[in-house]
Amino acid sequence: MNFEIKYKDARGRLGILKTPHGNIKTPALMPVIHPGKQTINVKDYGAEVVITNAYLIYKNEDLREIAIKEGVHKLINFDGPVVTDSGSFQLSEYGDVQVSNQQIVEFQEKIGTDIGTSLDIPTPPDVKRERAERELEITLQRAAESLEVRDELMLNSVVQGSTYPDLRSKCADELGKMDFEVHPIGAVVPLMESYRYKELVEVVMASVSHLPDSRPRHLMGAGHPMIFSLAVAMGCDLFDSAAYILYAEDDRLLMPNGTLKLEKLHEMPCSCEVCTKYTPEELRQMKKEDRVELLARHNLMVSFAEIRQIRQAIIDGSLWELVEQRCRAHPFLLEALRSLKNFTQDLEKYDPPYKKSAFFYSGSESLNRPEVFRHLKRMERIPNKGSVLLLPRSNKPYSKYLYDLPKRFYRITGEKENTETVNPESVESQLENMQVVVVDVPFGIIPLELDQVYPLAQNESPDDYDEDSIKIVNNILQDYLKVFEQIIISEEVVDTFQLKETLQINEKYEFPEPLKIVVSDDIRIKMIADYQFGAGAGEGLFNEEVKIVKSRKTGKIRHVYDGEELIATLRASDGVFVLAREGARRLHSFIPYPKNRVVVNEDAEPFAREGKSIFAKFVINCDIDIHANEEVLIVNEEDQLLAFGKSVLNGKEILDFNTGQAVKTRKGGF
Amino acid sequence: MNFEIKYKDARGRLGILKTPHGNIKTPALMPVIHPGKQTINVKDYGAEVVITNAYLIYKNEDLREIAIKEGVHKLINFDGPVVTDSGSFQLSEYGDVQVSNQQIVEFQEKIGTDIGTSLDIPTPPDVKRERAERELEITLQRAAESLEVRDELMLNSVVQGSTYPDLRSKCADELGKMDFEVHPIGAVVPLMESYRYKELVEVVMASVSHLPDSRPRHLMGAGHPMIFSLAVAMGCDLFDSAAYILYAEDDRLLMPNGTLKLEKLHEMPCSCEVCTKYTPEELRQMKKEDRVELLARHNLMVSFAEIRQIRQAIIDGSLWELVEQRCRAHPFLLEALRSLKNFTQDLEKYDPPYKKSAFFYSGSESLNRPEVFRHLKRMERIPNKGSVLLLPRSNKPYSKYLYDLPKRFYRITGEKENTETVNPESVESQLENMQVVVVDVPFGIIPLELDQVYPLAQNESPDDYDEDSIKIVNNILQDYLKVFEQIIISEEVVDTFQLKETLQINEKYEFPEPLKIVVSDDIRIKMIADYQFGAGAGEGLFNEEVKIVKSRKTGKIRHVYDGEELIATLRASDGVFVLAREGARRLHSFIPYPKNRVVVNEDAEPFAREGKSIFAKFVINCDIDIHANEEVLIVNEEDQLLAFGKSVLNGKEILDFNTGQAVKTRKGGF
Repeated sequence: MNFEIKYKDARGRLGILKTPHGNIKTPALMPVIHPGKQTINVKDYGAEVVITNAYLIYKNEDLREIAIKEGVHKLINFDGPVVTDSGSFQLSEYGDVQVSNQQIVEFQEKIGTDIGTSLDIPTPPDVKRERAERELEITLQRAAESLEVRDELMLNSVVQGSTYPDLRSKCADELGKMDFEVHPIGAVVPLMESYRYKELVEVVMASVSHLPDSRPRHLMGAGHPMIFSLAVAMGCDLFDSAAYILYAEDDRLLMPNGTLKLEKLHEMPCSCEVCTKYTPEELRQMKKEDRVELLARHNLMVSFAEIRQIRQAIIDGSLWELVEQRCRAHPFLLEALRSLKNFTQDLEKYDPPYKKSAFFYSGSESLNRPEVFRHLKRMERIPNKGSVLLLPRSNKPYSKYLYDLPKRFYRITGEKENTETVNPESVESQLENMQVVVVDVPFGIIPLELDQVYPLAQNESPDDYDEDSIKIVNNILQDYLKVFEQIIISEEVVDTFQLKETLQINEKYEFPEPLKIVVSDDIRIKMIADYQFGAGAGEGLFNEEVKIVKSRKTGKIRHVYDGEELIATLRASDGVFVLAREGARRLHSFIPYPKNRVVVNEDAEPFAREGKSIFAKFVINCDIDIHANEEVLIVNEEDQLLAFGKSVLNGKEILDFNTGQAVKTRKGGF
Repeated sequence: MNFEIKYKDARGRLGILKTPHGNIKTPALMPVIHPGKQTINVKDYGAEVVITNAYLIYKNEDLREIAIKEGVHKLINFDGPVVTDSGSFQLSEYGDVQVSNQQIVEFQEKIGTDIGTSLDIPTPPDVKRERAERELEITLQRAAESLEVRDELMLNSVVQGSTYPDLRSKCADELGKMDFEVHPIGAVVPLMESYRYKELVEVVMASVSHLPDSRPRHLMGAGHPMIFSLAVAMGCDLFDSAAYILYAEDDRLLMPNGTLKLEKLHEMPCSCEVCTKYTPEELRQMKKEDRVELLARHNLMVSFAEIRQIRQAIIDGSLWELVEQRCRAHPFLLEALRSLKNFTQDLEKYDPPYKKSAFFYSGSESLNRPEVFRHLKRMERIPNKGSVLLLPRSNKPYSKYLYDLPKRFYRITGEKENTETVNPESVESQLENMQVVVVDVPFGIIPLELDQVYPLAQNESPDDYDEDSIKIVNNILQDYLKVFEQIIISEEVVDTFQLKETLQINEKYEFPEPLKIVVSDDIRIKMIADYQFGAGAGEGLFNEEVKIVKSRKTGKIRHVYDGEELIATLRASDGVFVLAREGARRLHSFIPYPKNRVVVNEDAEPFAREGKSIFAKFVINCDIDIHANEEVLIVNEEDQLLAFGKSVLNGKEILDFNTGQAVKTRKGGF
């Protein structure tokens, strides 16, 4: 296995792909090099890998001779990794090629390609299902054949299946069982050319969700920076750009928010060298050849800048923010973004729950982000019954702003017709046993005890709500409030989220004084633990008399001790627990195998005990529900606790990978 | 007057500001130059104008001497226009300055400043109203004084008033009456620093809507590219950037979507020379001095690129699209964008109704764009009564896709309890006299006859509607349908826009065959004319037997003749009428003075008759409701028709300006 993941965000991965000619940092853009007529040195613009066409070399006697004699790297004058395509494109364009699958795979090995490709059939969108199935069979056969033919050549194997998501998934499943290094997703160019981005999402999601996580995916023919961030967020790692030169030849400029025609420009659009030094008029007056070269340089610089921004966004945990910005460039990209809500469950598993960046609401589409879905799922881990008090949004963290509470409330009780006069004092006296919850966008319901947990504190959204927000929060509340016997709800919340009819409210009263609400530290630490590790974790971790130590500076909870023994530390940046040895021991003692665990083999046991980080190849089992960036227990096959640490990958990835780190161990020594 | 407008979009203007040292293309960014310690030649990065601080020069004996002897241009080594500030900033920072208003104005004149500034009082946000009023009085007095002191110096006069919109408006009104060249909007930096963009919108809109349109506005202290496009869309023309160097000194990078800290970067974010040539690590390792210079260069290149993109967007008519993209970068910018709906009526007057770019829906915020508001207002120009048939969205233009009509409909009639059995045939026989309307997002109701008129055909939005769209269309329909006696409405429309309750529907039926709908050419041309020129224009222009000539290629209406005499041509790009001589004559004959007219003085009369374009200084009256890019009649004071053409400015601007073109004349000769 040649791929490993360093950082994750959304379904995106920042990784390293190893090849005979060096490592490729992904996401990566591979400029397409025409063998024999390349003028621009793409390395100057950030290319670590290029792609060229083995079939074109094969067909041309001169090129073939050089390639066989001196290798493809010499031929195209590029000493980094070279990927070659097989002639499938020519097959789809002209209906026929003068080479067999076996021949072209052998040829690619012979000329020293780093990653070669079998001769798959690129079935276009919208064909009859029968044809898509038939061609898929051939693609799969040739894929299998290519494995028999190759010696040490790394191999692409292309996911086909036209616009039938189930065929794409089936193809991905089959290819995933075979021993390939990279999986292109093929024949999507017609979708991109006609802005059918929503269908592109369907095809890509059907493919990536069935491909092994441990292999990079190449969105074939995607060379427009408009689509890069969305594709990466769906789990694509590689792109190829012939666009940089094709668009230049057509006097068009690539931009992350669209395409510009030079003839219509009065001003150059970007900060690149070309746009800074020339005016559109100067470019128009130039010799075609010179102009094409300058425009191609612009296109390369813009494309690589977008790739760099995406990589940075993955590291920062702000990829969703970037995607949501980019998808505003065209209504059909927005439509594609909106369609991601059909894949929330899958996306949630890959998206790390704790990030360095705040959650920025960019419009109603943000309501569909995995963070919102995850929060509502995790709310089920918290025991709720009895009475609930619902407050409107305030500044964050909410519990710091309780001095400004509203006085006007409604009350709903189980009895349908409650005519009893409400006694505000009776409510106040119950406050201690009430769940106090803030109602806010986009997370809906936030128990006061969780008001410092990521991303419930680390998010921003506009004060004036859109209708989708109102509707979603209304739905969340309908569902959430079912279990309570008594609901006290601020008038503002009822009005804002249109709950009067929903909740059949008939009682209203006003407290003479603003309510005095105090959040109990004991309940807070238990609820955070439940929310973070699962129902019951709070009791399990902090069941006896624990000692809570707060920060002198911020007044926030920092550590929880059992006597002198540290159980866990509440991380200031995201408000969740980092386990200490005693915490790990306790978690292990009451959470049943294999929950929250990564199981390593015998060989790794001593290293784990020493506190060394866990590499994926030593893992023999794990909790499939682990996310990246979570606190996990490291155990052996007998479920003996060896160490604990923070996951780098999610459960599915940990099982699938054989390279790279799975867990950054915090401490061993058990 | 030194300013003229070349292109308009939203409230934004692409213009030319003339100064003694040359012309400035606006929107413009003015880098702040520190007198005596500038290292970067900002001209290389696109600066046509710079700003420096006259008070700092005044206070420093050496600098003062050089400035008096050789001029400020020599002192700062910049031969283009130089703007100077007066020391107000120092006044606000340190509470006192060692110079009087009179002295600093005289000094600025003496050192050859192109545009100087009086010593206003920059009242910060959130002060007590009393203080804001008191300081505003001083600011206004000093403004008046500065006019008496100056000889030929062009003068800035700063709008103050803290966060009180009415004080800002009052200040703008007062300053507008005086003879200044440029109006900065002052003391907004604290709002921008704390992301209070919604309040920035209030302050800016309260100012610009009361300032003369004929003078450029400078959003003082705005140097972050994040805010440029929104500010331009509100009517700001000038920005100043000390940010480029201040952020660089603090190891921070400006980007159009935010600020980046070098210490956190793994990848450089943009396509500029610095980001392409260096890695973050290389920059971090550099000597501070070298690093600051490179980061400052990045900051300048990014800032000027954003200015160029904005200028291009104004020319293209895509400024709203750019603003809606940029405002996704931060939830508080989104909040500011949303708050523009409070100013729709004002924005609509400035926004040209016909643009080169399509309307791109970027989220529910697009529903508040002036185009939607304008469409609904213009719909009132169309006579509606009797029966209406409502169809769901199809591809555009809708009338080309009528083969695929739905068959299931509801019917609503005036009678509350209609138990009469519906006869589908009776509906079909009425079709000819029915208004057929497509229900779509974002424009709500589109009569089939208008389906090629900008922007009703030239827009794109996602197929899955957000809740705001559903609600707004529901509201539009409630209002629109009031006047009809019979409503036939497709089941799909009822379901999509949740009309079942709204319309109290109780009848449902299915046509045995899809309806056959034909759009009458006669009705089409009349309705377009009503929509474009006002109620009754259709009858007035095309009241007799007219001859309609269609394009052989597209089948669309191209020309309307009276016998051999061309009345008007339907422009293919935006589906509205371009008048011919006979059309202008007819429009003039039945639309009462001063509607649709620009009235020129005696001097301009012969030029107008010759077909020469109309300069604003010759205009003595005009229809205040004219938009930019509209067909207008050019008349003399006796309302004799002289010529006709296309407006460059709106009515208010035409009256306010004394420079530049007001109308591009198509033809004179009357």
